[in-house]
Amino acid sequence: MHPNDPRLRSFIDVDPTSDFPIQNLPYGVFSTASTPTPRVGVAIGEYVLDLAALQAARLIDLPDGVFAQPSINAFMALGPQQWSKTRARISELLRHDNAELRDNAALRQQALIPLREAKLHLPLRVEGFTDFYSSKEHATNVGTMFRDKTNPLLPNWLHIPIGYNGRASTVVVSGAKIHRPRGQLKPPSAELPSFGPCKRLDFELEIGVVVGQSSAMGTMLTEAQAEQMIFGFTLLNDWSARDIQQWEYVPLGPFQAKAFATSISPWIVTREALEPFRVHGPEQQPTPLDYLQQKGANNYDIALEVCLRTPAMATPARISATNFKYMYWSSVQQLVHHASSGCAMNIGDLLGSGTVSGPEKDQLGSLLELSWNGAEPVQLPDGEQRGFLEDGDSLLMRGWCQGDGYRIGFGEVEGTIQPAGN
Amino acid sequence: MHPNDPRLRSFIDVDPTSDFPIQNLPYGVFSTASTPTPRVGVAIGEYVLDLAALQAARLIDLPDGVFAQPSINAFMALGPQQWSKTRARISELLRHDNAELRDNAALRQQALIPLREAKLHLPLRVEGFTDFYSSKEHATNVGTMFRDKTNPLLPNWLHIPIGYNGRASTVVVSGAKIHRPRGQLKPPSAELPSFGPCKRLDFELEIGVVVGQSSAMGTMLTEAQAEQMIFGFTLLNDWSARDIQQWEYVPLGPFQAKAFATSISPWIVTREALEPFRVHGPEQQPTPLDYLQQKGANNYDIALEVCLRTPAMATPARISATNFKYMYWSSVQQLVHHASSGCAMNIGDLLGSGTVSGPEKDQLGSLLELSWNGAEPVQLPDGEQRGFLEDGDSLLMRGWCQGDGYRIGFGEVEGTIQPAGN
Repeated sequence: MHPNDPRLRSFIDVDPTSDFPIQNLPYGVFSTASTPTPRVGVAIGEYVLDLAALQAARLIDLPDGVFAQPSINAFMALGPQQWSKTRARISELLRHDNAELRDNAALRQQALIPLREAKLHLPLRVEGFTDFYSSKEHATNVGTMFRDKTNPLLPNWLHIPIGYNGRASTVVVSGAKIHRPRGQLKPPSAELPSFGPCKRLDFELEIGVVVGQSSAMGTMLTEAQAEQMIFGFTLLNDWSARDIQQWEYVPLGPFQAKAFATSISPWIVTREALEPFRVHGPEQQPTPLDYLQQKGANNYDIALEVCLRTPAMATPARISATNFKYMYWSSVQQLVHHASSGCAMNIGDLLGSGTVSGPEKDQLGSLLELSWNGAEPVQLPDGEQRGFLEDGDSLLMRGWCQGDGYRIGFGEVEGTIQPAGN
Repeated sequence: MHPNDPRLRSFIDVDPTSDFPIQNLPYGVFSTASTPTPRVGVAIGEYVLDLAALQAARLIDLPDGVFAQPSINAFMALGPQQWSKTRARISELLRHDNAELRDNAALRQQALIPLREAKLHLPLRVEGFTDFYSSKEHATNVGTMFRDKTNPLLPNWLHIPIGYNGRASTVVVSGAKIHRPRGQLKPPSAELPSFGPCKRLDFELEIGVVVGQSSAMGTMLTEAQAEQMIFGFTLLNDWSARDIQQWEYVPLGPFQAKAFATSISPWIVTREALEPFRVHGPEQQPTPLDYLQQKGANNYDIALEVCLRTPAMATPARISATNFKYMYWSSVQQLVHHASSGCAMNIGDLLGSGTVSGPEKDQLGSLLELSWNGAEPVQLPDGEQRGFLEDGDSLLMRGWCQGDGYRIGFGEVEGTIQPAGN
């Protein structure tokens, strides 16, 4: 039975609303208090399955030590056929009707660790981080607010999957503290800039695409090659300092406004697990240039939600619910464009999709849009309101694909704002 | 005697016009046909001194294997005090009056390799590459050509050391073939973009700054800290596709236009070796914000030249001669600004200074400026002319500091344009 088969069950009890049924098996990196060395695992129900332990016990046939690593990069290097074979093997080992692991009490004790006992680390070594801008709704909203409400999209937007290099050094895992950045600020009314804490701190709901194979400098990618290179997907919060961005970004793009932090969820959901949830994206008009044309259904039906918990609130409140399927440019098109000049791609490259906003007002992927640049603050259930993020705010994103009686979930990516440092 | 002392001589004969006297000792990574494993060395006269061999022979006291690496990153990680101590030791070993290496015929044979027998590799593992825009002359020229000749500098330029994240995956060493990129092109007269080979391929003369120490996410850097983190400097050619850039760069900055290749010289000249050549940069008006203010003479008097050899020419012709001292923003200010939002810096980060252009017409750092956007093509000695680079053109940059009877040289960075690929 294929690892995606909805009828599969594990010997581990998994609730139908869990993010981590046997049909998912996302990869992450974890450690425990008793064994503090980070290594690779997959999530299953309320457990992490220690793949280094399984490999040491010779239950998975792969080059020695490939999972005894603080990142999945070595495993990704083995290539798509090995990714598929390994997933099938892990699925087999977790099946309710397979005794290999199920009835090996000692190995189960060692290799199945309750998630509440696991510390989750950044799951990949990020080689390069590139952020795109591929939601037509988001780009239209931004253009309406700042450029020209009668002509919000710039002339190149419908032709190019616009993107820019981000900063890999500050990609962190969910839970990492997010320090309010300082930077140069110059509101329109001020004659000179000043330097101080960002006053318009925002989140951006995105999907992160993990590249698992490299491509040579000087070569372009076809749609098929680009798809094969994609290992999996995460949630991604492209924290943004709107005021720092406004003053710095002309003409060479956002820099410090984005460089202070980017958070990703700890579990990389494999491309294979998402296969049943592929959909065609919106019609692309005008027709893209030949090199960007796609035949496949390269978008994904992934429900996404954003929740905010201020210091005064006991539980988070949902402030947005949208879907990854709305994206105008697909991840495959982004990757093809990224390599189009002959730019070499590397194992461990991370692509941010761009803010995911849908067509409705409660489907927006940033406070900039939800509050319409602060003019219509978001109302919270306890009576508070927010234009932008304040110190102590906890911002949480979740994502999942709804199957028949199960979901393929992404876990969550969370960050709490700390006051600007010294 | 301090390693910079002009009176120092090596037992290796070094011509006064050589780039590599005993006062320099730049680091690189090399291999030979007989020993193809890349390792760290320093250049001296017409030789490379194999530091891995010296360390194995116990003549340099450092952690095992730190030079038996394909990059200098492990050595840089040891920190500025170790950099200084090691340079002093290498200097001592090369002194004309020290018998340790001089009279050890077997070790000399092994460890001193003629440069013509050495293959030079990229000397560092580039973690992140950031490009700045810090020449007032260059920014003014560009603004005059494209923006507003009466007001060429954008309002933020004199306040912010403007920079953007570049693409680390395509930083290559001198000699690497440079494939003409393809990309989306849309001249003003065209209604729709097309995809094809870049028609306005250019070079940019820059200095590369190698960061040798890391800084924590969420922290800022002082001038003193930033200076200590700088390991050394290279020449850097920020190859640019002007037509791809023009269509893609609004609003998020240059991306594919720069991502196809960046070339650096193979020898990293240490900050310590450049100490005698420090100068104050131009007066900064208006006064920079506090966090950017600098007390030190943080510019360097480095003569730079650019030479072009078309396929028809036997030898290169110089097309520009300028100097790094003209830069408005110093490397220290660039690094301080880079970390100002709390952006973490890493060992192996590379910062490009921005195109170095001086005040005179023959002191310009790009064909865009030399040919004034193609309007006044550069005349070559054989009667040819160039607006932008053509296939088969070889573009060469050199740099050096002129001391009293010796020079601290950077070697060269060269690239030859290959036709656009398939």
